Amino acid sequence: MATTETATDERLIRQLIDEWAKALRSKDISAVMAAYTPAFVAFDLAPPLQVRGTEAHRKGFEAWFPSFDGPIGHETHQLSITVGENVAFSHCLNRITGKRTDGEHTDVWVRATVGFRKIGGRWLVAHEHVSVPFYMDGSDKAAVDLKP
Amino acid sequence: MATTETATDERLIRQLIDEWAKALRSKDISAVMAAYTPAFVAFDLAPPLQVRGTEAHRKGFEAWFPSFDGPIGHETHQLSITVGENVAFSHCLNRITGKRTDGEHTDVWVRATVGFRKIGGRWLVAHEHVSVPFYMDGSDKAAVDLKP
Repeated sequence: MATTETATDERLIRQLIDEWAKALRSKDISAVMAAYTPAFVAFDLAPPLQVRGTEAHRKGFEAWFPSFDGPIGHETHQLSITVGENVAFSHCLNRITGKRTDGEHTDVWVRATVGFRKIGGRWLVAHEHVSVPFYMDGSDKAAVDLKP
Repeated sequence: MATTETATDERLIRQLIDEWAKALRSKDISAVMAAYTPAFVAFDLAPPLQVRGTEAHRKGFEAWFPSFDGPIGHETHQLSITVGENVAFSHCLNRITGKRTDGEHTDVWVRATVGFRKIGGRWLVAHEHVSVPFYMDGSDKAAVDLKP
């Protein structure tokens, strides 16, 4: 694939990630969902192990968004995008912050890996994997206190 | 990309995943490491947030393998591979089992997402993300008890 095509595709994917993050910050569920393929599969921060299809994923956002009092803070760091002709993947570290309705303040770094497909000339998210590691010291505690 | 090429690439990637899993089960570190690109980045089950480069990833296996008394059980389930010309990604659920040297018996389902690059005609693993979700009930416990 020509270098200029790769550069264009990388720019388009970066734009898709930026638009998705902007939609998430403002809790705009329709705009968030516009990023996904219908056959989308998510491995998310909260159980279950996997979520299949956009309908189930939307329900996850509908439950999560109202737990924030106001907008959600979402920064993308160390983004790496590997682009092929119609398939790409990215990985990055995201910082999620915000005031929760229960009074808690969230400030957590998560790892995000995304699989993209170009369908009808447009890049979409086919797969998303977001997680934190966990401490293997017998506590099995999620490592929500790590910083890069 | 022609359908026959896609089918061949998917078969080669499936073979790479199978060989990697076989090497892991028998704790053959050199064979495990043969799957990775030098610039490999891992988001692993245990901290830190990310591991950059094969040298650091090898150290992780060198610490983890001896915690099993005998071979490691590793099954791949619900494998989905999305193949492009020189870039691909996969996701699956893996069951890890085995007797630990501390007497515990491990039996855990994890989510695995892998990013592949075809370099010099050979598919390699450029990125790996393995995780379990965690319970958002205030306990922040890793969900090591989930089954698909």
